[in-house]
Amino acid sequence: MKSYRKELWFNVSARRAFINITPQVEDCLRQSGIKEGLALVNAMHITASVFINDDEPGLHQDYDVWLEKLAPHDPVSQYRHNVGEDNADAHMKRQLMGREVVVAVTGGRLDFGTWEQIFYGEFDGGRRKRGLVKIIGE
Amino acid sequence: MKSYRKELWFNVSARRAFINITPQVEDCLRQSGIKEGLALVNAMHITASVFINDDEPGLHQDYDVWLEKLAPHDPVSQYRHNVGEDNADAHMKRQLMGREVVVAVTGGRLDFGTWEQIFYGEFDGGRRKRGLVKIIGE
Amino acid sequence: MKSYRKELWFNVSARRAFINITPQVEDCLRQSGIKEGLALVNAMHITASVFINDDEPGLHQDYDVWLEKLAPHDPVSQYRHNVGEDNADAHMKRQLMGREVVVAVTGGRLDFGTWEQIFYGEFDGGRRKRGLVKIIGE
Repeated sequence: MKSYRKELWFNVSARRAFINITPQVEDCLRQSGIKEGLALVNAMHITASVFINDDEPGLHQDYDVWLEKLAPHDPVSQYRHNVGEDNADAHMKRQLMGREVVVAVTGGRLDFGTWEQIFYGEFDGGRRKRGLVKIIGE
Repeated sequence: MKSYRKELWFNVSARRAFINITPQVEDCLRQSGIKEGLALVNAMHITASVFINDDEPGLHQDYDVWLEKLAPHDPVSQYRHNVGEDNADAHMKRQLMGREVVVAVTGGRLDFGTWEQIFYGEFDGGRRKRGLVKIIGE
Repeated sequence: MKSYRKELWFNVSARRAFINITPQVEDCLRQSGIKEGLALVNAMHITASVFINDDEPGLHQDYDVWLEKLAPHDPVSQYRHNVGEDNADAHMKRQLMGREVVVAVTGGRLDFGTWEQIFYGEFDGGRRKRGLVKIIGE
């Protein structure tokens, strides 16, 4: 069994953003030389997500509005976590969008449907943060 | 390490439905000959889910009502994604229910608690769509 | 390829609670002897979650309030699942928080960011329930 590990670094200046990281994950897979196995991609921070959906800007705006409705940032005082912090909502948005994805690796490729793309979802930006790619297989 | 791959196809005529795919995944596991490992089951479409919960029709109706409350289909004009489309809500419902499950394989069986069953959740039906089963192990 | 399996048992007297199970999962990893691979940790019940977030009591109270807002327990009669049961809301809260996590194993350690901790989330306590740890690798 082979294994491969790489950290991906992000520095989003806005509080929230969605970044397509499919090309970076494909690079990792090529570097790994793994042809059959599983690829895990996860946020290493608890106010960020890795998820799979569509690379469509309108949808990303819809997600942003929708997440703000289900887990509003303001008023920050509504959350007990926000003592010297203002990111409690980011911990909730991350649960809605998920921490990680696991992707099948088949024939040396990410085994994806037509529209599947991997995103890093930032909900508390303004600093350097990390994601992890771990691939195992043969 | 062995690996196994199979696509599962669905054609749901309704917009939304939940389909118990546990028997199909168990068939895949038998065909794979894998005794110890991990099974990934994921939707290959971004308006559908694979999730694990109870095979209870009342609960499925509750899920449908609840998802419609958290991510309503109408009015379709509320979503920027809905330009020539009407499925933005399906992209949200899929995030709530999740893209994939990873299941332990032990002694050649899906290593499940008493009530765990795997479902394909369709949120934008009316056409042929796919799920993926990938199993790795020995 | 090595594989390791262990059940973790819980008995939460309250209806809802979050329990940090990171030390138990680390024990499992040590016992497994696996240095490189993937660790799956999942609830074996469909009214409970395993998720990764912050071990901060204020945040856990925020999660409890927030989950109750998005998937309220009362009135129990609002859910069709609640015929001789009162836990439909727990099936929804579990979908919001997720069934499972998959964690990279690197150098014999859980490959975590600074604040990542694994929690068992109970949404329908008052009885003995199980989680599963399955680790594969070398």
